[in-house]
Amino acid sequence: MSRKKQNDRLIYLPLGGAGEIGMNAYVYGYGAPGKEKLIVVDLGVTFPDMDTTPGVDLILPDIDWLVKRKADIEGIFITHAHEDHVGAIGHFWEDLGAPVYARPFTANIARRKLQEHGHPENVVTVVDVYPQVIDCGALKVSYLPISHSIPESAGLMIDTPEGRILHSGDFKIDLTPGVGDPFNHALWEEVSKDGVKALVCDSTNVFSMEPGRSESTIGPAIADMMRAADGMVVATTFASNIARLRTLAQAAVEAGRSVCLLGRSMQRMTEAAKETGLLTDFPPTISPEDALNVPRESLMLLVTGSQGERRAASAQLAQGKYLGLSMKEGDTFLFSSKTIPGNERGVIRIMNMFSELGVDVIDDAGGKYHVSGHANRPDLITLHEITKPQILIPMHGEHRHLREHVKLGNERGLTGVVAVNGMMIDLSGNQPTVAEYIETGRTYLDGSVQVGQFDGIVRDRIRMALNGQIVVTLIIDEQDEPLGDPWVELSGLAETGRSNASLVEAIEEDLSQFVNRAKPKTLRDDVALEKELKQIARRTAQSEIGKKPEVMVIVSRLS
Amino acid sequence: MSRKKQNDRLIYLPLGGAGEIGMNAYVYGYGAPGKEKLIVVDLGVTFPDMDTTPGVDLILPDIDWLVKRKADIEGIFITHAHEDHVGAIGHFWEDLGAPVYARPFTANIARRKLQEHGHPENVVTVVDVYPQVIDCGALKVSYLPISHSIPESAGLMIDTPEGRILHSGDFKIDLTPGVGDPFNHALWEEVSKDGVKALVCDSTNVFSMEPGRSESTIGPAIADMMRAADGMVVATTFASNIARLRTLAQAAVEAGRSVCLLGRSMQRMTEAAKETGLLTDFPPTISPEDALNVPRESLMLLVTGSQGERRAASAQLAQGKYLGLSMKEGDTFLFSSKTIPGNERGVIRIMNMFSELGVDVIDDAGGKYHVSGHANRPDLITLHEITKPQILIPMHGEHRHLREHVKLGNERGLTGVVAVNGMMIDLSGNQPTVAEYIETGRTYLDGSVQVGQFDGIVRDRIRMALNGQIVVTLIIDEQDEPLGDPWVELSGLAETGRSNASLVEAIEEDLSQFVNRAKPKTLRDDVALEKELKQIARRTAQSEIGKKPEVMVIVSRLS
Repeated sequence: MSRKKQNDRLIYLPLGGAGEIGMNAYVYGYGAPGKEKLIVVDLGVTFPDMDTTPGVDLILPDIDWLVKRKADIEGIFITHAHEDHVGAIGHFWEDLGAPVYARPFTANIARRKLQEHGHPENVVTVVDVYPQVIDCGALKVSYLPISHSIPESAGLMIDTPEGRILHSGDFKIDLTPGVGDPFNHALWEEVSKDGVKALVCDSTNVFSMEPGRSESTIGPAIADMMRAADGMVVATTFASNIARLRTLAQAAVEAGRSVCLLGRSMQRMTEAAKETGLLTDFPPTISPEDALNVPRESLMLLVTGSQGERRAASAQLAQGKYLGLSMKEGDTFLFSSKTIPGNERGVIRIMNMFSELGVDVIDDAGGKYHVSGHANRPDLITLHEITKPQILIPMHGEHRHLREHVKLGNERGLTGVVAVNGMMIDLSGNQPTVAEYIETGRTYLDGSVQVGQFDGIVRDRIRMALNGQIVVTLIIDEQDEPLGDPWVELSGLAETGRSNASLVEAIEEDLSQFVNRAKPKTLRDDVALEKELKQIARRTAQSEIGKKPEVMVIVSRLS
Repeated sequence: MSRKKQNDRLIYLPLGGAGEIGMNAYVYGYGAPGKEKLIVVDLGVTFPDMDTTPGVDLILPDIDWLVKRKADIEGIFITHAHEDHVGAIGHFWEDLGAPVYARPFTANIARRKLQEHGHPENVVTVVDVYPQVIDCGALKVSYLPISHSIPESAGLMIDTPEGRILHSGDFKIDLTPGVGDPFNHALWEEVSKDGVKALVCDSTNVFSMEPGRSESTIGPAIADMMRAADGMVVATTFASNIARLRTLAQAAVEAGRSVCLLGRSMQRMTEAAKETGLLTDFPPTISPEDALNVPRESLMLLVTGSQGERRAASAQLAQGKYLGLSMKEGDTFLFSSKTIPGNERGVIRIMNMFSELGVDVIDDAGGKYHVSGHANRPDLITLHEITKPQILIPMHGEHRHLREHVKLGNERGLTGVVAVNGMMIDLSGNQPTVAEYIETGRTYLDGSVQVGQFDGIVRDRIRMALNGQIVVTLIIDEQDEPLGDPWVELSGLAETGRSNASLVEAIEEDLSQFVNRAKPKTLRDDVALEKELKQIARRTAQSEIGKKPEVMVIVSRLS
């Protein structure tokens, strides 16, 4: 153990994932205030939606605070290979420059991401699990295997001069997960027996009241379904859920079907699993070309697109063909997945497209063909009871999940704290206190550039989408006189308004009237002129079509 | 009965609601092909979303076909007062010009809508239920009371020379609905006993496997919850669900709480219910001003906004205050409602805002505080068995619901047909046949004007939202020479690109280079010039920021 200096403190700071589901990024630190040595746990992303982030490609955490503290970062620890935990590593590694630690499968995925951004593979160090220790000065980190819906998930044991922190990572309690580590009661008991300062714990399923079910419970039902199906069966799940791919593939083989994997991430994930020795008892698969020659009733396709993504294999099959394969009357499509809130419309869209093709769609409504990868409420209690922490800090969840998780702990005598993104918690004393509020937020990857959440760029797009746009151009000559009339173009607006006249003409007429009567002083003043033209254009649009469009005014001066 | 002429046919044509949930509009007709006398059943709307219809105010069915047949329309029959059945009446009545029939409560709501559009009240005829008959020539229509989640819902009995059609309307089988008509087995048996040609039947809940539950089953649980709650209780549900308002209000009174209604549609609906004598055993309510003086633990607010709507009372309470009332730590918010697919993000958003205030949020996850207004699968079977139709025509549902409903019928020996919007079914013979495919679709109310789904207006808005916009202006003088350089403005795009230079300047430079080298022929040709400028702007943007924006080119010629 490092020697404790006076004033040194132990901090926890979530930069993402605390107050939302997705985009996990947590910081722990130890040292003098403002000079703590830091470790980063996970660097995830979240996904845009049309409502709030149209046109954005990816959402990353705002890591400005970390970048300023770059010199203090001792390591980046990735708990598992889900996008919301590892997805930002390629985008941010250069800004942080610290070594990256991960278990082999996670490291394989992280390296692919780093390579895509031109970073060397060797920034990732493959770690073994506990009892191996990664020494980051005052903080000593070990990987604790834990079950989740992707192989080689881990919690972290972080030993500090203030005591031991257990960071659960995303987890469930599954004793028979198929692929990956079963939940190891003995291990978690062992690391907890000398006292746990804080348990930082997954919260996503705190509102799920039933104990979670094991991956192993769904295989038989899936095999029955596949046996009973007349035609081709197509199943989708998250490609990273290697255990589920195996469950589905084994069920297919039991039902006498050949298995074919479709979709880019399906290829990428199984490749990574193969490279790290995780696909040992995975049934053989056939290529899409070979699948074309297999009778439909002897075929199962395993495809990407469980969330209704527009370009995934599932959507392409719904629209017609994918690599020559197509679905028809009598075939069955299985969603072995949960629809993430917000994706319902996309999923329902492809369900109806399948329905139009005569394909029977089976989803998880009956609870037979999918189990969650996260700990439900009773399983959270189990981890609380095993670890008996001094402090419970819920992470990975919306505000309502974190709050409920604290309440759950309180009911059973645990001290808990709701710590949301940007809230730096000082864990040094007996009671957690808020040390500081850090400005956090989201960074948008937009095309190839990063833009800030509050730069106004996305706001402008949303406004154009809601209100449409008018572009007004006006030429002013060398004598500050209008040269010709103002010119109007519309985008995303009705051409004809209430008066049954052309909207363009109506606006142009009102603008011309103004320009022809405007005082020389106004015509010389760009700001005043633009303001007036904008107001008139909006007013006329409001009266003609009942909308107030965005207006861009371009005054060209010949001078 | 009218005399049957040779060639006369009986048709069914859905224009909305068949292939979607919402926007119900069905047509029945009898007569010589192309000359049938018609009745319209329901004229509903559906609601826009950011993904597909940004900025749109309301979505209406495309009734072009009906407008062309205006002279043949004998009547418009509204089954009940939900927006997706009556919402378009004000917008379309002038185009159709036929008398409108409805039961008193529905008529009250329909009249309000007609008044908003300046149409006379007396176009609505209040009808009594069966055995009253509205004579529309060959078609004779009676209202059959049926239980649903709004008062005075009805199915229709339509007698035709080809036999009797039963149109279920939206319904559930509820023997104790609180407000409104209990399901009347005897009545439906009576009207079915002489044979039913076709049952046109609600399909929305065909995937719900359990029998539906009665409105009367949830009151006790709600009262218990309200008694147990420490602080103020706020409950939300659809304002039109008068029975639920009563259930909630009575539970509040049982729990010793005063009841206050908040939100415009809450006022409008209870007003309509009062005017039509439906609020007879509704507990007394207090005004928002009086509510301010009631201790929180003795108060229940009944508010609008069960779907997370941004301007509803629920959202305003989540943000802070509404009419001086506010929620705080220890209060409880109850969603006595189901979240309609697609609205999850909005609902979750306000749940988290409440969580931040320390308010406990209760939703229907446990199934204790809400029951559906639609017939579940076993209840659909009940109606099939009572009515024993020759033909089952599922209506009101997405394609997957209609298809499943037909399968359900087939399993039990019924002939069924999936008839989606625009599919005109000839019911004259023994087997239903598709007579014609009518072009249908959606009309968007955008501000104060109606625009077509395929006019490209909304598509342009979506493109601006996804891609951002570049506006290029260029002045060409009298000699067809560029006057100055091209000018670029951005909207919704990053200001700085990959080269770390201003994106505007990078594009302007590339455009200037082109313009200065362009041949006189190109400079004289608007189409060619615009095409080139557009391509260059997109190419430069793609290389600088990795996006291909929308480009508007405005060439001004001084001539």
